[in-house]
Amino acid sequence: MPSYMSAIDAPEAPIQIIGLPYDSTTSYRSGSRFGPEAVRSASYCLENYDPILDLDLEDISFGDAGDVEIPPGDPKRALSVITSALDEKVRPDSLVLGLGGEHLLTLPLVQRVLKNYEEKDLWFIHLDAHTDLRPGYLGEPYSHASIVWLVSKEIGFSKIRQLGIRSGTKPEWELMRLHNTLTGIDDKSVASLVDWIGDDPVYLSVDLDVMDASLFPGTGAPEPGGVSFAELQRILNQFIGVNIVGADVMELAPSLDPSGASSVVAAKVVRTMLFLMASGMTGGEE
Amino acid sequence: MPSYMSAIDAPEAPIQIIGLPYDSTTSYRSGSRFGPEAVRSASYCLENYDPILDLDLEDISFGDAGDVEIPPGDPKRALSVITSALDEKVRPDSLVLGLGGEHLLTLPLVQRVLKNYEEKDLWFIHLDAHTDLRPGYLGEPYSHASIVWLVSKEIGFSKIRQLGIRSGTKPEWELMRLHNTLTGIDDKSVASLVDWIGDDPVYLSVDLDVMDASLFPGTGAPEPGGVSFAELQRILNQFIGVNIVGADVMELAPSLDPSGASSVVAAKVVRTMLFLMASGMTGGEE
Amino acid sequence: MPSYMSAIDAPEAPIQIIGLPYDSTTSYRSGSRFGPEAVRSASYCLENYDPILDLDLEDISFGDAGDVEIPPGDPKRALSVITSALDEKVRPDSLVLGLGGEHLLTLPLVQRVLKNYEEKDLWFIHLDAHTDLRPGYLGEPYSHASIVWLVSKEIGFSKIRQLGIRSGTKPEWELMRLHNTLTGIDDKSVASLVDWIGDDPVYLSVDLDVMDASLFPGTGAPEPGGVSFAELQRILNQFIGVNIVGADVMELAPSLDPSGASSVVAAKVVRTMLFLMASGMTGGEE
Amino acid sequence: MPSYMSAIDAPEAPIQIIGLPYDSTTSYRSGSRFGPEAVRSASYCLENYDPILDLDLEDISFGDAGDVEIPPGDPKRALSVITSALDEKVRPDSLVLGLGGEHLLTLPLVQRVLKNYEEKDLWFIHLDAHTDLRPGYLGEPYSHASIVWLVSKEIGFSKIRQLGIRSGTKPEWELMRLHNTLTGIDDKSVASLVDWIGDDPVYLSVDLDVMDASLFPGTGAPEPGGVSFAELQRILNQFIGVNIVGADVMELAPSLDPSGASSVVAAKVVRTMLFLMASGMTGGEE
Amino acid sequence: MPSYMSAIDAPEAPIQIIGLPYDSTTSYRSGSRFGPEAVRSASYCLENYDPILDLDLEDISFGDAGDVEIPPGDPKRALSVITSALDEKVRPDSLVLGLGGEHLLTLPLVQRVLKNYEEKDLWFIHLDAHTDLRPGYLGEPYSHASIVWLVSKEIGFSKIRQLGIRSGTKPEWELMRLHNTLTGIDDKSVASLVDWIGDDPVYLSVDLDVMDASLFPGTGAPEPGGVSFAELQRILNQFIGVNIVGADVMELAPSLDPSGASSVVAAKVVRTMLFLMASGMTGGEE
Amino acid sequence: MPSYMSAIDAPEAPIQIIGLPYDSTTSYRSGSRFGPEAVRSASYCLENYDPILDLDLEDISFGDAGDVEIPPGDPKRALSVITSALDEKVRPDSLVLGLGGEHLLTLPLVQRVLKNYEEKDLWFIHLDAHTDLRPGYLGEPYSHASIVWLVSKEIGFSKIRQLGIRSGTKPEWELMRLHNTLTGIDDKSVASLVDWIGDDPVYLSVDLDVMDASLFPGTGAPEPGGVSFAELQRILNQFIGVNIVGADVMELAPSLDPSGASSVVAAKVVRTMLFLMASGMTGGEE
Repeated sequence: MPSYMSAIDAPEAPIQIIGLPYDSTTSYRSGSRFGPEAVRSASYCLENYDPILDLDLEDISFGDAGDVEIPPGDPKRALSVITSALDEKVRPDSLVLGLGGEHLLTLPLVQRVLKNYEEKDLWFIHLDAHTDLRPGYLGEPYSHASIVWLVSKEIGFSKIRQLGIRSGTKPEWELMRLHNTLTGIDDKSVASLVDWIGDDPVYLSVDLDVMDASLFPGTGAPEPGGVSFAELQRILNQFIGVNIVGADVMELAPSLDPSGASSVVAAKVVRTMLFLMASGMTGGEE
Repeated sequence: MPSYMSAIDAPEAPIQIIGLPYDSTTSYRSGSRFGPEAVRSASYCLENYDPILDLDLEDISFGDAGDVEIPPGDPKRALSVITSALDEKVRPDSLVLGLGGEHLLTLPLVQRVLKNYEEKDLWFIHLDAHTDLRPGYLGEPYSHASIVWLVSKEIGFSKIRQLGIRSGTKPEWELMRLHNTLTGIDDKSVASLVDWIGDDPVYLSVDLDVMDASLFPGTGAPEPGGVSFAELQRILNQFIGVNIVGADVMELAPSLDPSGASSVVAAKVVRTMLFLMASGMTGGEE
Repeated sequence: MPSYMSAIDAPEAPIQIIGLPYDSTTSYRSGSRFGPEAVRSASYCLENYDPILDLDLEDISFGDAGDVEIPPGDPKRALSVITSALDEKVRPDSLVLGLGGEHLLTLPLVQRVLKNYEEKDLWFIHLDAHTDLRPGYLGEPYSHASIVWLVSKEIGFSKIRQLGIRSGTKPEWELMRLHNTLTGIDDKSVASLVDWIGDDPVYLSVDLDVMDASLFPGTGAPEPGGVSFAELQRILNQFIGVNIVGADVMELAPSLDPSGASSVVAAKVVRTMLFLMASGMTGGEE
Repeated sequence: MPSYMSAIDAPEAPIQIIGLPYDSTTSYRSGSRFGPEAVRSASYCLENYDPILDLDLEDISFGDAGDVEIPPGDPKRALSVITSALDEKVRPDSLVLGLGGEHLLTLPLVQRVLKNYEEKDLWFIHLDAHTDLRPGYLGEPYSHASIVWLVSKEIGFSKIRQLGIRSGTKPEWELMRLHNTLTGIDDKSVASLVDWIGDDPVYLSVDLDVMDASLFPGTGAPEPGGVSFAELQRILNQFIGVNIVGADVMELAPSLDPSGASSVVAAKVVRTMLFLMASGMTGGEE
Repeated sequence: MPSYMSAIDAPEAPIQIIGLPYDSTTSYRSGSRFGPEAVRSASYCLENYDPILDLDLEDISFGDAGDVEIPPGDPKRALSVITSALDEKVRPDSLVLGLGGEHLLTLPLVQRVLKNYEEKDLWFIHLDAHTDLRPGYLGEPYSHASIVWLVSKEIGFSKIRQLGIRSGTKPEWELMRLHNTLTGIDDKSVASLVDWIGDDPVYLSVDLDVMDASLFPGTGAPEPGGVSFAELQRILNQFIGVNIVGADVMELAPSLDPSGASSVVAAKVVRTMLFLMASGMTGGEE
Repeated sequence: MPSYMSAIDAPEAPIQIIGLPYDSTTSYRSGSRFGPEAVRSASYCLENYDPILDLDLEDISFGDAGDVEIPPGDPKRALSVITSALDEKVRPDSLVLGLGGEHLLTLPLVQRVLKNYEEKDLWFIHLDAHTDLRPGYLGEPYSHASIVWLVSKEIGFSKIRQLGIRSGTKPEWELMRLHNTLTGIDDKSVASLVDWIGDDPVYLSVDLDVMDASLFPGTGAPEPGGVSFAELQRILNQFIGVNIVGADVMELAPSLDPSGASSVVAAKVVRTMLFLMASGMTGGEE
C-alpha cells in the first residue's frame, strides 16, 4: 500500500483524503488529533489488494490533500477553519474522505455535501458505540457527543440510521427509539437498509469506537461490547456500489493503543472506504 | 456515570462498594492492588444507563465505602484486617460488592455473608479462567490460587459452580470433575443454573481473567481462550433478579494493560454487578 | 504523605489545592487534564517529611477542594467556569494552589489574587521552558502559549520574572529582552530576586516543562535542555518565607510518561509548594 | 557480557525446541528476535496440563536446545549459520520445534526435514495472514515475505496448504488460486485436510500473525481480520495424531505488545505444538 | 509449564549471583520479582570490558546460581525459604551477590555473612533513597521499609553507613541523626569512609532507587532528587579493593520502565559489583 | 519549526536532509528504521528559533529530500541502494544531513563526501557511546558495530576523533589508545580540537546513544553514563563556523522510548546540526 505518509498530491483525483487533526472537545481521553498521521504511517503495513472485494488501490484514483491546520481549543473556530479549508484544498465535485480527529468534525463535511444535494435526500449512516445525540455537553453545543444531534438539525431524522450503538443517556436512547434510527448489524438488516437506500446519496460516518474497546483501545471513549474488525468489514462491504457522496473515519487516538494495532485497523478501514467510494462512483456513472 | 473516584459517601445505601487493594500472593505479575482506583477512574468514561437491561444507575441506591488499607505481605494479616474493616465500614445488612485486588480476598467477603446465611444454602458462583482449587501454593495455604478450595472449606462443594474455567493442574481438574462444579457458559446451561438456584442466596465472584487474555490483558495471570465482554455480559445478565447477597470483581491489574481498555471493561462489569445486586434485592422483597 | 486521592475536605484550612482538568488548547500532545488525578495518586508514594526544609505536612494546614468540572473545548467558557467555581469552592481569603491542566488556567487564578492586591504590587514568577508570550496562536488569543502575555495585560511587565526559559519565537524572545524578564537560575540570581521581592505579594507559577524533556517527559510540550528535579527544588526552596499569595503547578500530562516518574516528580513539587505557601503565611504574620 | 539466558538441557529427548532470534528482513516493525526469550519467560504463567487434549507436559519428553546465535543483517549468512547450528545442537532424528524470529527462518528447518523425507511426500501446512509468495522483496530473494515461495522451490506446490491467509498482492493471490493452496479454516475443511494427509509427514508452520491484529498485536506485520486464540487452538487440535516431522511458531515480536498478552498466547501455542508433535510420534510408532 | 530460564552453572566459582524474585511487601508499585530476569536479559547489551576500571569480566571467576523459588505472600516464609536455598545453592565460602527483588531480602544475605564474621566487625554500607528504618509498616515487622532497622538488630548501628538517602519519616530521620549513619556522597566523604573501613569485611547493599526517579523509574518507590548512573558509578568505584563479603542490587522493577533503560542501568551496576567483589578478594589475598 | 513531516521539497537548497530507514544489523534492539519519521513528526513541537545561537531556521536554506527506500536485510545491498539514491536525490554539491537508521549507514555518506575531498584532509568527528571499531561482528564485516573501523579504511585514523565513548571490547579500546582518537568532552578539549581543525573539511557523525541511557532510552544499544542534551548541545555548538561537509544523526529508535522524549531530543539535535552546517557554509564563503 502506498504510504499516505507524505500526502499523495493528486488534486485532480475524484476522491480526496483530508486529515482533520483536532480533538479539543473530547470528554475522556484525547489524542485523536494524531489520527491522520497514524493512519498514513500504518498504511505502509498493508497491501494494495483486497482479496474479499477483489479490488486493488492501484486501479482507483484518489489523492491525499493533507491535513487542515486547525487551531486547538474553541470548536466553533475549528469548524469554521475546516469549512474554509475544504473550499481551498479540494475541488467542489470531489468526494471527500475525512480522517479524524474527533467526531464533531463530521459536521462541516456533511455541510459541504449539502451544497450539492437536497437535505431531504441525503442518508446519514452512522457507525458508532455512542448515540451522539446530546443537545450539548456541559453547556457546549458543539462537541463530539452531539454530532448526530447537529446533523439532525441539517437533515432531520428520517434518513439517519445508527449501527453498533451501545451507549447513551436514557433521553438519548428514547430519542433514538422515537425516530427509529437504530439499525441491526446482522447481514439481513444491513442488506435491507442498502436496498432501501438504492441510488440515494449517502454520507457514511464511521466512529471507530464502534469496535469493541478490547479490540480497538486506541480511541478516546472506548466502549466494551462492540464489533470486531471482521464484523465491521462485513457491514461496510455490503455498501459496495452505494452512492457514497461523503465519508469519514473518526476517533483514532493512536497513543492510547501503544501496540499500534488500532492504527493498523484504522488504516484498513480507510482502505475499505476508498474501495466503497470508488465503487459507488462507478455505480453512479452506469 | 458518576465517577466513583472520590468514594461516594452514602453509608445508608443498601449496596456498598468496597475497594481491596492487595495483591501480595499473586504468582505471576502483580498490580491488582491498583484495581479499585482504576475502576473508579475509568467509570467516568461510561454512562449511567444500560440499554440492554434498560436500567439507570440513578434509579438504584448504592454507596462506595472506599478502600480498606491493607498491609502488603502476609496474607493472613491481610485477611484479618479486611474482616475487621468490613465490620467498621459497612452495616451488617448491606450487600457488599468487593473490588479487587487479588482473588484470595473473596474469602472474608464470603465469610461475612455466612454470618447471615446457612453454609448449606449459599451458592458460590465462580467465573474465572483458573480452577483455583490448589490446597496450597509453594507451601502457602492462603493465596489467589486456592480461593475456591478455601471457600469449599466453608460451604462444601455442592453449591459451588465454576464457569469459564480453562486452566488448572491435572489434580485440580479431577477435583472439579469429581464434584461436578464445572458449568457450561452457553445460554441454556446458564439458564438451567439460574432456574435451579431459584430464590437461594448467591455469592457471585468474577475473576476478570475469565475473559480472553487478548481481550483483557490487564490481569495478573492472563489465559488465552476465554470469553469476550459481550459474552460475559450475556452470562451475567441472566442472573438478573437472582438473590445476590455478596459479590466481587477481582484481579484487574491496570498497569498491565497500558491501553486502559481493561479498566474500562472492568468498570462496565462493575456497573452490571450493581444492576444485578439491585434487581435481586427488589426481587427478594416482592 | 496522605494521598490527596479523595480530596481532603478541609474548607477552613488557609491553603486550598484545586484541580483544573482541562487541556483543550494544548498545541502538541494533550493529556494534562489527567494531571490533578495523577498528582493525588502519586502522592501516596511520598513521605510527609521534607528533610531539606525540615518541615512536615502534618504541621501545616491545607485542604483539597477537589476538581473544577470544566467543559472541554472553548477556552473562554473554561476560564469563565473556573472563575465561578473558585468563588464557590474556596473562601475569599484562602491561598489557592492550582493543579493543571494546561497553563492557560493560570489566568483566572491570577485574576482571583488581584481582587485582594493591587496590580502594580503583584510579582508574577514564572518557571517554564517556553516564553508563553504569543499574542495568539492560530488566531486564538486564549491558549497555553499566551499565558504570560495575558498576565502582562493584567499587571504589566515590570514585576514579571521568567526562569528556565529556553524556547520561543524570535519576537517573543525580543519582548522578553525588552522587558528584561528573563532571570538566571543560579543560586545568586535567584537570591537577588528573592531579596528584591522582599515582602511583596507573589504569584508563583510552575510549568513543569521547565524540567528537561528527558527527565520530565510527562508534559505536552517537552523541551530538551532544562533543569533536573534537584535543581528545581533548589530554586523553589529559595522562596521559603516569601509572601506567596497564589501558586500553581501546571502541565503534568501523566499518560505521556508511562513510567509514572513524571507524576511522582510533580507530586513532590506540589509538596514543596505547600511548604513554601505555609512558610510565607507565617512570615507574613510576623 | 554473556547473556545468562538458557534452556532445558535434555539432548536425548526426541523433541527439541530451538530459538531463532533473527528479524533483519522484517519489512515493517521488527522485534521478533526477542520472541524465543519472551516465550520462555511467559511459559511460567501457564500450567503443564491441557484440559481440552487431556494431556500433560510432564508426560512427554522434550528438551530446549537454546538459541542459535545468528548474526544480524545478511539473510544468506543467517540461513547458513542456522543450518550449521542445527547439525550441532540437535540429533539428526530429533523433531525440531523452531521458535522465531522471522518467518524466513522456516527455510533451514524445512531443508533439515528434507534430509529424512522425500520432497514429494512432505506436506507444508502454513498458517499465516500473508501469502508469503513473493519471489523477492525490493530485490532481496531471501525474506519473510517469500518463505512459501522458497519452500515451493524445495517441494513444489502440490502439498502446500495455506490457512488463514487474508493479505497479499494480486499476483500472489493469483498464484495461490492457481495452485489451489488456500484452505478453509472451518472444522470441516480442516478435517478433510487431515484425512487427506493420513500418515504422510507434515511440516507445520505457524506465523502467529494468522491471529487478528487486535488480538495479537505483538508481531511485525499485524493484519486485521484474523482468528482468535480459541479458533487457532481448534484448528491446531485437529492435527492431533498427525505425523508432524518439523514445526515452528514464528513472528512473535514481544515489545510490540506491551501488555504481554501476545507472549502468553504464543507460549500456549507452543504448548499445543509440543502436544501435537508428541502425539504424532506415538501415532507413527503404532 | 517449566520456565526455561536459567543461568551460568559454575558452582566452583568464588563469586555467585543469586536471583531473589519476591516483592510482596512492596508498599507502592510492585514488580521487582522480575528484576533478576531483566538484569540477565539486559546484560546482553553490555560489553565485558569496563574502560574506567580497565577490568574484563572474562578475567574474573563468577557463576550464576539461578533464582530461588520463593512463595509469594508471607514475608517470614520467604525469608526462611531463602535462608535454606542459600545453603543448598552456594558453597559456604562463596561470595554472594543477590539480585532483587525487594530490599527486605537483604536480611538473609546479611545473616549468611554473619556465619563467617563477627557482628561487631561487619560494615553495612547502604545506598538508597529511603532510610528504611521503620520498626514496622502497618503492623508488619518484615518489609522493605524496615530493612536497615532489621540489619541494625543484627549488627547494631555503629558500622552502618547510609548514602544517598533523601526520604523518610521524621522519626526515621531522627534515628539516622542519632546514630550518625548518613554519609555524604561527594568524593571526599566516600574516600574517608573507605579509608576508615580499611580491611574490615563489608556488606554492600544497593537499592537502585538511590538513583533519581527520572533517571531510574523502573523501581517500586521512585524518589526524585537522586544520583545519576555516573555518580553512582563514581561512588561504587571508590570501593575497589575493599573486602566485600556480601552484596546485593535490589529493587529493579523492570515493567515500570517500559523503555528498558532501568534494566540496562541495573545490569551495568551488577557488572560493577562483580568487579568490586573480585578486586576485594584479590586484595584480601595479598 | 516547520514539521519535516511531508518532506520539504526544495532541491535547490544547499543543505539536504535525507532519511535512511534501515536497522537490520542492529545487535540488540532494533527500531531505528522509524527514526526519520519520528524526527519529522517531533519537529512540530519545536520552535524555529534557537536562543543560544540566536539563529532562526527561517533564515537558512535547506530541503528535505525524503527517505531512501532501503530493502531490509543484507547490509551490502542496503549500502549500495543508498549510494545510488544519493546520486539521484541530491545534487553533487549539496551538503547532506543523514537521519538514521543505524550507524552503518554513515559509510555511504562519508564515501559521497570523499568524491569532493581528499581522503587525507577529511576529519571524521564521531560522537558515540561505543567505539564502533570492531573489524566485524559474528562474521559480518558491515554492521553498526564497525562503522568507525570502516571509515578508517577510507581515511585512516589520523583525523578521526571520538567523543563520549564509554563502551567497547578491550581490543577496540586498545586500538583507540593506539591511534589516540579518544577526545575529552570538556569545553577546553573541544575548543582545542576545533582550533586544530581550522578550515579543514569535517564529517560530523552523531550516534544519539552518546547520550546517557536514562536520558535517551530511544536507541538500540543504550549505554549508561553518557551526556545530557545540554552537554551535547554545548559540545556541538562549539563547532559553529566549522566547515562541515557532511553530517548525520543516527540511531534514534523511537518506539523504545514510549514517552516520546527521545524523538524530541533528536529533533532538537537535528535543528542544531542544520545551524552548524549553515554557519560553516557562510564561514567557508567569507
